[in-house]
Amino acid sequence: MNIYYLTLFPDMYEGVLGASILKRAKDKGIVDYHMINFRDFSGDKHNKVDDYPYGGGAGMVLKPEPVFNAMDSLDIGDNKRVILMCPQGKPFDQKLAEELAEEDNIVFINGHYEGYDERIRTLVTDEVSIGDYVLTGGELASMTMTDAIVRLIPDVLSNQASHQEDSFSTGMLEHPHYTRPREYRGMKVPEVLLSGNHKHIEEWRHEQSLKRTRERRPDLLDG
Amino acid sequence: MNIYYLTLFPDMYEGVLGASILKRAKDKGIVDYHMINFRDFSGDKHNKVDDYPYGGGAGMVLKPEPVFNAMDSLDIGDNKRVILMCPQGKPFDQKLAEELAEEDNIVFINGHYEGYDERIRTLVTDEVSIGDYVLTGGELASMTMTDAIVRLIPDVLSNQASHQEDSFSTGMLEHPHYTRPREYRGMKVPEVLLSGNHKHIEEWRHEQSLKRTRERRPDLLDG
Repeated sequence: MNIYYLTLFPDMYEGVLGASILKRAKDKGIVDYHMINFRDFSGDKHNKVDDYPYGGGAGMVLKPEPVFNAMDSLDIGDNKRVILMCPQGKPFDQKLAEELAEEDNIVFINGHYEGYDERIRTLVTDEVSIGDYVLTGGELASMTMTDAIVRLIPDVLSNQASHQEDSFSTGMLEHPHYTRPREYRGMKVPEVLLSGNHKHIEEWRHEQSLKRTRERRPDLLDG
Repeated sequence: MNIYYLTLFPDMYEGVLGASILKRAKDKGIVDYHMINFRDFSGDKHNKVDDYPYGGGAGMVLKPEPVFNAMDSLDIGDNKRVILMCPQGKPFDQKLAEELAEEDNIVFINGHYEGYDERIRTLVTDEVSIGDYVLTGGELASMTMTDAIVRLIPDVLSNQASHQEDSFSTGMLEHPHYTRPREYRGMKVPEVLLSGNHKHIEEWRHEQSLKRTRERRPDLLDG
């Protein structure tokens, strides 16, 4: 998979893409990350990428030219998903992560501070929001999506089982976990987990998972 | 505001906290970021921070000692919010961002790969999820929350107006934006925005905002 980031802040990605499983996926040759600073495509001698909104109002608006020109430069044809990070988009969820994990090319268009000129949306296959909160730019949102997507690609995680048991894949929240020591600052591990009785352990975990989902996220059980 | 990150991957934060408004907020002395690698607090000669789950199962579980010891080291008393990033948590939203923007001290506890030993939850004031998708670790989630929170602190954004008009603050999605040029690749800016008639412009924007919210996120209008 090739992932392209159209961004004015390419350095923001370094720490995240250079660590942990995102680094490992790249080192294994499963995925590659490409930073495209669309300021280089402004076609403007002052490298200007934004301008005042027509009709007035606070804030600046990202001009169409730098984004269209940067997209033209990619030369990857139609075999791609082009994702615009924006609060108006459809909410990102595990199902969309699974779908995107099958793609060959993903392009993230990331604004920063500004709104997007509406015409930029004609380049886009998916407008996506990672949650109902406002971020300064799309960079963190595209990194977050990258992490959720890349870990689902076969051979990226060493233990395939580990992501299949994750919350949301099962439709329920995870049960509580305990590890050593058996007692810590007066708090003990539940007896059933020490019993060695796998049937009881499975039952307890299922009950806890259901209880936690009912208490915290009853909406997941409705689905 | 002081923000503390208990993490095994302190380097992941550099690119994000060192750029744009998160850097500016620090440079202005409004916020400071503190990385605490809780591996340094394992109390174990092999610096071990996780162990197998009691009762069996895939994956590892974060041990309680490193997290409790790292928390003890902070010495900031009770004037703090302690946030555990986890998929079981309450969904992060703009309202919670606004609430957290008033705090003096925020501590993020970030696991990576593993589950948390259940006893770690006794240290926590808020369990928070940034969305219904699975991430490799809490780091990206805590960076995302940091961005959403810090930009709301007074004097961080240069133009206070700009975040008050954001989506979600008004309860509706934003209207479309347009900037120069008037025509680009055959696509024109709507006439009303060029009219200079502020009443018409406001009406058009309100209609567009309502239409977009109704089409894409009718759930926001129910609230």
